[in-house]
Amino acid sequence: MRLSKSDKHQKAQTMLFRKLGDALGNQLEKSSPGSPILLPNGARIFNRLVEFLRNQYVHYGFQEVITPTIYKKALWAKSGHLENYADDMFTVTSTSPSRSDEPALDANSAANEYGLKPMNCPGHCLIFAAQKRSYRDLPIRYADFSPLHRNEVSGALSGLTRVRRFHQDDGHIFCRPSQIEDEIRKTLDFIRVAYSVFRLGPYRLALSTRPESYIGSLDDWAQAEGSLKRALDACGQTWTLNEGDGAFYGPKIDVILKDSDGKEHQTATVQLDFQLPKRFELEYQAPAPEVEQRGETTTDAALLAVSGPVAPVLIHRAVLGSVERLMALLIEHYNGKWPFWLNPRQGIILTVNDSEPVVEWARRTQRVLLGVEEALEGGVVAPSGLGAIDVDDSARSLQLKVREAKTKGYGMIIVVGPKNVAEGTVSVDATGVPQVGDKPAEKGLEMTPEELVVFMK
Amino acid sequence: MRLSKSDKHQKAQTMLFRKLGDALGNQLEKSSPGSPILLPNGARIFNRLVEFLRNQYVHYGFQEVITPTIYKKALWAKSGHLENYADDMFTVTSTSPSRSDEPALDANSAANEYGLKPMNCPGHCLIFAAQKRSYRDLPIRYADFSPLHRNEVSGALSGLTRVRRFHQDDGHIFCRPSQIEDEIRKTLDFIRVAYSVFRLGPYRLALSTRPESYIGSLDDWAQAEGSLKRALDACGQTWTLNEGDGAFYGPKIDVILKDSDGKEHQTATVQLDFQLPKRFELEYQAPAPEVEQRGETTTDAALLAVSGPVAPVLIHRAVLGSVERLMALLIEHYNGKWPFWLNPRQGIILTVNDSEPVVEWARRTQRVLLGVEEALEGGVVAPSGLGAIDVDDSARSLQLKVREAKTKGYGMIIVVGPKNVAEGTVSVDATGVPQVGDKPAEKGLEMTPEELVVFMK
Ligand SMILES: [Zn+2]
Ligand SMILES: [Zn+2]
Repeated sequence: MRLSKSDKHQKAQTMLFRKLGDALGNQLEKSSPGSPILLPNGARIFNRLVEFLRNQYVHYGFQEVITPTIYKKALWAKSGHLENYADDMFTVTSTSPSRSDEPALDANSAANEYGLKPMNCPGHCLIFAAQKRSYRDLPIRYADFSPLHRNEVSGALSGLTRVRRFHQDDGHIFCRPSQIEDEIRKTLDFIRVAYSVFRLGPYRLALSTRPESYIGSLDDWAQAEGSLKRALDACGQTWTLNEGDGAFYGPKIDVILKDSDGKEHQTATVQLDFQLPKRFELEYQAPAPEVEQRGETTTDAALLAVSGPVAPVLIHRAVLGSVERLMALLIEHYNGKWPFWLNPRQGIILTVNDSEPVVEWARRTQRVLLGVEEALEGGVVAPSGLGAIDVDDSARSLQLKVREAKTKGYGMIIVVGPKNVAEGTVSVDATGVPQVGDKPAEKGLEMTPEELVVFMK
Repeated sequence: MRLSKSDKHQKAQTMLFRKLGDALGNQLEKSSPGSPILLPNGARIFNRLVEFLRNQYVHYGFQEVITPTIYKKALWAKSGHLENYADDMFTVTSTSPSRSDEPALDANSAANEYGLKPMNCPGHCLIFAAQKRSYRDLPIRYADFSPLHRNEVSGALSGLTRVRRFHQDDGHIFCRPSQIEDEIRKTLDFIRVAYSVFRLGPYRLALSTRPESYIGSLDDWAQAEGSLKRALDACGQTWTLNEGDGAFYGPKIDVILKDSDGKEHQTATVQLDFQLPKRFELEYQAPAPEVEQRGETTTDAALLAVSGPVAPVLIHRAVLGSVERLMALLIEHYNGKWPFWLNPRQGIILTVNDSEPVVEWARRTQRVLLGVEEALEGGVVAPSGLGAIDVDDSARSLQLKVREAKTKGYGMIIVVGPKNVAEGTVSVDATGVPQVGDKPAEKGLEMTPEELVVFMK
């Protein structure tokens, strides 16, 4: 039987999951097609990626919000999704009609129907609109890691890349027209930093400009495209132009990543949007509102004396894009050689035999490495930051256990025998940890478990 | 106009949100009734709570998984939810019938309908069932922070406590019958540690036993109830008996927390379950399977020579319960005096005037405290662990700014003036930080921003 392209891909993905040690059963896939399940190793990588982004958010001024999964159809009508995106959406209703919000109305009435969110933007627009905003408050940047659902046709589903449920490292920037260039520049900087941390790349940047049918004024477009071009020029990366390829509501920049096979993947996006702020009647107060709206400044005291409402510019942006898809790229990219901080298998402790003192010392070493040996006041645990330290105390030969650990991609291989028990040490092979900077690959190290915690930092 | 009880509660919740600095607009509530939105301060507390639990999971042996939001109706039929829980559920369908998985079938056919998950258990049962399990693998403990949806009637919705969308610190333990007591004991220990960290309590434990209609054998029940009682006795807390009040599928322990007004809230639950493992035909392999199933041990070599399938016991457990509801309790409990690690407003830097050197020094101090002043290699940021350090560099009087900062509940109030600029220091009032252990409340401290980072740890 020949495998179709999509079967092949599915098989490749299954292999990738196996590499993670996360075997997925078919039953799982049948119960929720297109919703990948992340088992412990996958969830660890996912959480590390989110944690990394949260750390950077402190620097880039994003504030995380936690927002609903379902919104009334009326919201999706307002945002334009019902008109333009309904095919890709799921509808949510009360399973029992008696629990409908408006039981007198038909179950299919917009008052009783919800849309399962495919995007976070309408929710973030509501948050922006919920308070009075001044030009001094801007830019306001919201981040959101909510699960999103898009109803891909079932034949197209594949592993972690073509899915129905996924998470974006989603962000929306509400800024003044004069701030567009600076915000784009910072976003491109964020992307550069993140991709260099993952050692992903090279990537190219593609600017898509005004298409034939568009909303907004020609001035809006000229100003926005000018800002994007200046930010692109300033970032020092090569970029290409997709003339006329922008969305009808604004120009955008795509990040096109080349994988090790030379295949291109679209990951990050930076999308300007003139439409949603209008649909949601978003506004902030500023002096000289007409000048402000054009992104210009004035020193004219008469103009500045009068404040009024201005529509903010909305920038949608994702640095990783779909977190699940980026994970698939990383799994292929690292091919088992994870950087230590992302490795779901940071270390394994192997016993040279299964005698009680050796096994007990191995278990104690595990507790020390995980930071749970000494509970703090009241029994609270403040882990060491090391995740995923396993123990193999089976009676099999050490040689076999080492080979298996290496195949599985463990970073540190820590061996414990009677001599270690007597000396209070462990023997460490750190050659599985990809080198960062000038740390040499090390093997045959002897140290106490406590020293190893420090060494691993 | 007299306020109804629920209006009063709603108003109280709104006040609580205001205290957080998270003003919620009405429009938000109308677009997704019962789905609380967490704005930046609320999201910070939420994330800190999740982070705290994740840290403890390393110790208690829970492995986090990330699971789908929607599952086919067939799964909810198998789990019994369609039969027993349909009123509280939401149904999910393709918005466009052309995108149904089985377009030839009716849109209401189970093949095309999903349930929006109200609980994680069926998904975790699928994960358990996806691999062959041995008695040596048990206990297996899965944790999950997925959003859950339960279709409460709209009139009952209120703030963070009666909601339709919430997150549980959900966990499912699959264990051998002989491990029940030990697992319950560890869970009660976890609850004790967590509640003492939050300084919540006292709480009482209530054991609910076999009701009139039940599934499973009398032996199963006697054994399970005996394990729960022994674990309760061993934990040293007072506990009460709700005879006959258990679910039909197993006995449970509830944690009943008394708030400062003496009102009782049910928070954590530990629920034994004989039903789901049967419905999902879960099994693990063990020697002497009949003895094993009874939770007993044998030394009979003939019995031990034969291995066979045994049904695991499932324990549902949540330490906080609903994270949102626990947040509401904590907001009332701390009444603005957050422990430092949970405070969404850990510190604010106030300028004595708005001159450029003073404002610049305040901004630099903020960057140092947040850990973003010095980007690491490649521009990556490794924050200090301090969140939410704000700056007030408005031209208003210092006295006014201090009063406002205290009202808002900031932990550290950090003042910066020309003298500080000259000396490279900041002036710190740490009396807003509730004292832990023997650290005295401190005021009038002078130190460099870098020293303050260390001091705040
Ligand atoms: Zn968006
Ligand atoms: Zn459960």
